[in-house]
Amino acid sequence: MQIDSALFQENERTAPTADERQFVDVGPFTCEAGGQLANVTVAYETWGTLNADKSNAILACHALTGDAHAIGWWDRLIGPGKPIDTDLYFVIGSNCLGGCQGTTGPTSLHPDGNPYRTRFPMVTVGDMVEVQAKLLDHLGIDKLHAVAGGSMGGMQALEWTVRFPDRVSKAFITASCAAHSAMQIGFNETARQAIMQDPAWNQGFYTDENYPEGGLSVSRMIGHLSFLSDAAFTHKFGRRLQNKSEFDYSFGVEFEVESYLRYQGQKFTKRFDANSLLYVTRAIDYYDCQSLANSRSEYLFVSFTSDWLYPTYQSATMNRLAEEAGRKCRHEIIDLPYGHDAFLLDGEFQGKFVAEFLKA
Amino acid sequence: MQIDSALFQENERTAPTADERQFVDVGPFTCEAGGQLANVTVAYETWGTLNADKSNAILACHALTGDAHAIGWWDRLIGPGKPIDTDLYFVIGSNCLGGCQGTTGPTSLHPDGNPYRTRFPMVTVGDMVEVQAKLLDHLGIDKLHAVAGGSMGGMQALEWTVRFPDRVSKAFITASCAAHSAMQIGFNETARQAIMQDPAWNQGFYTDENYPEGGLSVSRMIGHLSFLSDAAFTHKFGRRLQNKSEFDYSFGVEFEVESYLRYQGQKFTKRFDANSLLYVTRAIDYYDCQSLANSRSEYLFVSFTSDWLYPTYQSATMNRLAEEAGRKCRHEIIDLPYGHDAFLLDGEFQGKFVAEFLKA
Repeated sequence: MQIDSALFQENERTAPTADERQFVDVGPFTCEAGGQLANVTVAYETWGTLNADKSNAILACHALTGDAHAIGWWDRLIGPGKPIDTDLYFVIGSNCLGGCQGTTGPTSLHPDGNPYRTRFPMVTVGDMVEVQAKLLDHLGIDKLHAVAGGSMGGMQALEWTVRFPDRVSKAFITASCAAHSAMQIGFNETARQAIMQDPAWNQGFYTDENYPEGGLSVSRMIGHLSFLSDAAFTHKFGRRLQNKSEFDYSFGVEFEVESYLRYQGQKFTKRFDANSLLYVTRAIDYYDCQSLANSRSEYLFVSFTSDWLYPTYQSATMNRLAEEAGRKCRHEIIDLPYGHDAFLLDGEFQGKFVAEFLKA
Repeated sequence: MQIDSALFQENERTAPTADERQFVDVGPFTCEAGGQLANVTVAYETWGTLNADKSNAILACHALTGDAHAIGWWDRLIGPGKPIDTDLYFVIGSNCLGGCQGTTGPTSLHPDGNPYRTRFPMVTVGDMVEVQAKLLDHLGIDKLHAVAGGSMGGMQALEWTVRFPDRVSKAFITASCAAHSAMQIGFNETARQAIMQDPAWNQGFYTDENYPEGGLSVSRMIGHLSFLSDAAFTHKFGRRLQNKSEFDYSFGVEFEVESYLRYQGQKFTKRFDANSLLYVTRAIDYYDCQSLANSRSEYLFVSFTSDWLYPTYQSATMNRLAEEAGRKCRHEIIDLPYGHDAFLLDGEFQGKFVAEFLKA
């Protein structure tokens, strides 16, 4: 397991710099858990050209805090000549229901004119997929050539094949699972408590000026602890000090890794809504796919040896469900040291597998 | 790797129910980083009988949030007829410098009559060991038969063999390391930020009535995430719901693992001081033992396969340092699924090794 430093640049996971999002209203929506939304707006982007028979569409589903700009967060996989080749395919990215990057979520306006905040109904991975299906209706696409996603995006891709078996031919699911383990739920719950224990959270009814900035930054630090592997942390930071040769013996930043985590936490508070994080983590904790019996899709599952947040055994479980359902499937295990972030950082190895998978 | 449910009871890590602590003033103290303390009080307990030539003393060093009551937190190892046999040995437990269970720390009174809080000087693992040496002076013990500890306690035990090579014959060091990795520092920094981002922390100058309870509870949840393995979490909790058969679809407790983590967090705020957690995590992050060249001790290192917080390679590193120093040493790797908590939960396997090690 070698570390390629050139590859190992930081993934910024940021919103698009040039905003090319489009927006479509898909109307009222009833959530799986019973909640009602008077209207759902979907933020999306597309790349490439839809062919005449509309058979070359690929939906790319983002992870927890991602956005519609799939060509940004998955720049190693999506683009002209890349594994998910926008010269061949019409690629669609959309922000998930409950998110905060353009699609209706807790920061959106309630019909009373104020933001929903925690009046927003609880959403599920199934709800996210239902809203994506309405976007496809709007785009006039009956059937996807493929749905692709990693982490939470992989759970959406899996749900697509169960919920709309006639609307998806292939599913590429990387660094994901059919149901969260207790430890995954535990990490999410700790991140949620970091927010909810911040007095500024105020049961979700904070303002844009006074929001749970401290708790949100800690929740993101917890996330980043789980995104890297021990080997990746050591490679990136070791025990190097931050701009000094000796300890200050203070509670300020001493080690580089502290600076990195604080920076990631603080940056996150400028781009992501605290309530949204509660809703999307809840959605993936609830998700529990126990059978692919009614699927008609072909599957490519990928996992990474150093990913301890979504361990390889979880992809093996999904592959077994696909086998039990009689579906064509394969599970590729990639030995890279980047931890969970490998699904964003690795274009080469999973790229080769997904390029073949899409063409076959 | 089988899970023995009977063994796998929760370790409460609590303070002694019947307080049998003794206290001794060891005088003024100058910390390694330069800070001054007008007086240090040490809280300690002993079990068994010191023999005539004072050659049967064993010092048991506690982990991050432990206390002097070693027979409590290490009840699988210490006691009459147990691996660290109080019928044979005189066992000493003491609370570490900077802690909050009786030994001088940030809650202690400054000479001005108010608690130190963050006016307390930064302490190191070396300082903790120096204070323990003063306790041994008070007890009239020149040389320890052994020093024993896990996690932070193991770092103290290692430091004993370097700092006082003539005062310790054997060192039993379990689930520990010679220096924290970037990931271990990262977990500690995230726990510290959970406290420091709580407005009630107030730069450390909180009161006993208004303290950073929320942040401290989150810091402990982060700790508990790292104490167990994925397999242990799954065995203990799986996806079981907490006293319900269906989801509430709320941000209250849904899953048992959430209840467990919240409970551990809240319980911790009743027994541990937030500033103390900052100081002791800092101390172990600073610790960096690069050589055992001047040691005269014999070593037993133990690690557990499922401990991802203090992985086996770190014990292998310590064992290599001991070999390079020409010391008699062994490293036993125990295949148990309990994660880092194994060093507290396992009496049987490490118990057999340590019993032999102490007698040889």
